[in-house]
Amino acid sequence: MFKDMLGNVRKQCPIVHNITNYVTVNDCANILLATGASPIMADDINEVEEITSICSALNINIGTLNSNTIDAMYTAGRKAKELSHPVVLDPVGAGASTLRTATAAGLLRELQPTVVRGNISEIKALASGASGTKGVDADTCDKITLENIDSAVEFAKDFAARNNTVVAITGAIDIVADRKKAYCIFNGNAMMSSVTGTGCQLSAMTAAYIAANKDNILEATAASVCAMGVCGEIAYARLTKDDGNSSYRNYIIDAVYRLDGETLERYAKYEIK
Amino acid sequence: MFKDMLGNVRKQCPIVHNITNYVTVNDCANILLATGASPIMADDINEVEEITSICSALNINIGTLNSNTIDAMYTAGRKAKELSHPVVLDPVGAGASTLRTATAAGLLRELQPTVVRGNISEIKALASGASGTKGVDADTCDKITLENIDSAVEFAKDFAARNNTVVAITGAIDIVADRKKAYCIFNGNAMMSSVTGTGCQLSAMTAAYIAANKDNILEATAASVCAMGVCGEIAYARLTKDDGNSSYRNYIIDAVYRLDGETLERYAKYEIK
Amino acid sequence: MFKDMLGNVRKQCPIVHNITNYVTVNDCANILLATGASPIMADDINEVEEITSICSALNINIGTLNSNTIDAMYTAGRKAKELSHPVVLDPVGAGASTLRTATAAGLLRELQPTVVRGNISEIKALASGASGTKGVDADTCDKITLENIDSAVEFAKDFAARNNTVVAITGAIDIVADRKKAYCIFNGNAMMSSVTGTGCQLSAMTAAYIAANKDNILEATAASVCAMGVCGEIAYARLTKDDGNSSYRNYIIDAVYRLDGETLERYAKYEIK
Repeated sequence: MFKDMLGNVRKQCPIVHNITNYVTVNDCANILLATGASPIMADDINEVEEITSICSALNINIGTLNSNTIDAMYTAGRKAKELSHPVVLDPVGAGASTLRTATAAGLLRELQPTVVRGNISEIKALASGASGTKGVDADTCDKITLENIDSAVEFAKDFAARNNTVVAITGAIDIVADRKKAYCIFNGNAMMSSVTGTGCQLSAMTAAYIAANKDNILEATAASVCAMGVCGEIAYARLTKDDGNSSYRNYIIDAVYRLDGETLERYAKYEIK
Repeated sequence: MFKDMLGNVRKQCPIVHNITNYVTVNDCANILLATGASPIMADDINEVEEITSICSALNINIGTLNSNTIDAMYTAGRKAKELSHPVVLDPVGAGASTLRTATAAGLLRELQPTVVRGNISEIKALASGASGTKGVDADTCDKITLENIDSAVEFAKDFAARNNTVVAITGAIDIVADRKKAYCIFNGNAMMSSVTGTGCQLSAMTAAYIAANKDNILEATAASVCAMGVCGEIAYARLTKDDGNSSYRNYIIDAVYRLDGETLERYAKYEIK
Repeated sequence: MFKDMLGNVRKQCPIVHNITNYVTVNDCANILLATGASPIMADDINEVEEITSICSALNINIGTLNSNTIDAMYTAGRKAKELSHPVVLDPVGAGASTLRTATAAGLLRELQPTVVRGNISEIKALASGASGTKGVDADTCDKITLENIDSAVEFAKDFAARNNTVVAITGAIDIVADRKKAYCIFNGNAMMSSVTGTGCQLSAMTAAYIAANKDNILEATAASVCAMGVCGEIAYARLTKDDGNSSYRNYIIDAVYRLDGETLERYAKYEIK
């Protein structure tokens, strides 16, 4: 099934509108191209409605949130909803500042994004409205492990139900859940956290997957998360003794470019709860 | 002749002022360094006149057009014209939104850029003033092929004549034309369209080529377009079975860094029409 | 001693707040991760105080200075000083425009940064308040050589004394000085100047080093400069005949990721004056 989902991305080549941060934007564009989609980045309020209208999905990422673009995020988001385009929200650093927590919460409430993707600390900050995260990385104390996975699944399902969304909580173990069903995904490699923007890239790629699989949002999101994890594993296997996080970044995107449906199916490691 | 043009870039090390998008800006800086030029990025209206004054060329790219920087584009452009510095305009996504189409058209009209470089859909949008392009990529129906190349050449020459510019329309086949003469260039590799910003990089590099070859704008532009295509071929030949678009991006810039005049001459494939 | 300083970065994983340019920001984030720190980029005035409060150091870089973010730089800087967080100032292009020179001078005066890192032309522009640099690269006539090194050391110590800071002047030969003591560092490779942002990356990394070694700012800064130079050498040794500046960029960050304290100690080449 994941195989067909990747196939649909490649067949449909969805154009994805990104309003995103300036740190990882180039990698987001390249991973969208790698997966078979087409990126467009546009954040000026005077064009976001038109731009989102010619696209198939909208990816909103608050990684370098700027007061000037918040309105553009709402405006683009409303237009996307009006056109029934899927919307991904990546609440980067929610919990790290009032501006980020409030903006992410406001976008979540008003836009009801199709998918929300973040690390556990960001999603917890969104759920509680409280601050206190360790910058843009997840707090160690929040980490999802085999011991606390059941409560994490409950949390994810509850978050999804309350916000009428699919939530993708990513980390060493990933949970992708709607109100009823959760994929617990065990792909990936710890070294991915040493590459800036693997989360942002996943959010962008997820927008492409759900754009091409609109009737199957939960599974398409899980497929995208598995794809990123599998590519993280493939790329890791390619590292030489001299390679570090910069080459790893390139190899991950390369692996997304080379990924075929059979490989994705074969290496996807998940349980449904 | 192309050989000498690259040689002039390396000898003169022109500083190129870029007002460009935040998606591909790092690659633009690195390709300018690779080709022997020196990049400076500056888009604040309070400094663009001074910055452009210490440079040898100006490259304006509307890839993530922002209302705040439009004035800076005009201001820098006017100063560059006043100083007889060559100006490149890259109308990224012209046709995709009213803001982009109008801004590109306005810059074209007022600044009469030395070179306009875009894909066929962007140049058509500029020629007609009409919207309707597929995001930042060229529409398939606009594609230049061996069948329609003569009419594309006529279109390019007419565009150049009407706008008093040299136009570089790039894609599978590239056309570089002034009002009288056109280079049809057959270098490059289809995979270049899977790397974000190869067009932006080419525009930046072209600014360096024309800065160092001011008396020969048409040929310098053709040399730059051939150089990018040849480097796309060299980089493609280097790909291993694990490499994808991210490594390809690096290899293209690497090839520009390593390119010598003899290789450029030998592999440049073009016809003059 | 340098060994322990790198060890402290790896042990403490300091979060570094960066207000930086959009050209090299991704590389700054990846080099911070490579060295064992955690980056956060935030430049909106409505969140910079909160963000800097959860961080251990602040890195201010004016590479694409924008009027909107100047206030954010001052606001974040004042907060960081209030909390006794170390602050790095990278005056990119000081001397190239009035806006840059004045902003860098103002930040220097008001914030008294813990470390100022720039090329010799930028530091000279800051010292004199005068403009006239060659864009973002150092003027050849300013170059520090074995012949003029003693006067350069005097200049650096004087600059440090007048501005109550540690200054890192980087180039073919690097000088890291406080009012009394200077490290003259001979690591690095000339090809590093063909990679955009090696200076910006060094400034970001230095913020991590001084955050983790607050009682030893001069030595921590020298350790960071040596680390960058040593990694430039390691990366250079790795280049194949096809590699250029883009692969070199990746290899430098890779080398930072792989660098251990012993290697840093062994290959650091410096004299104390």
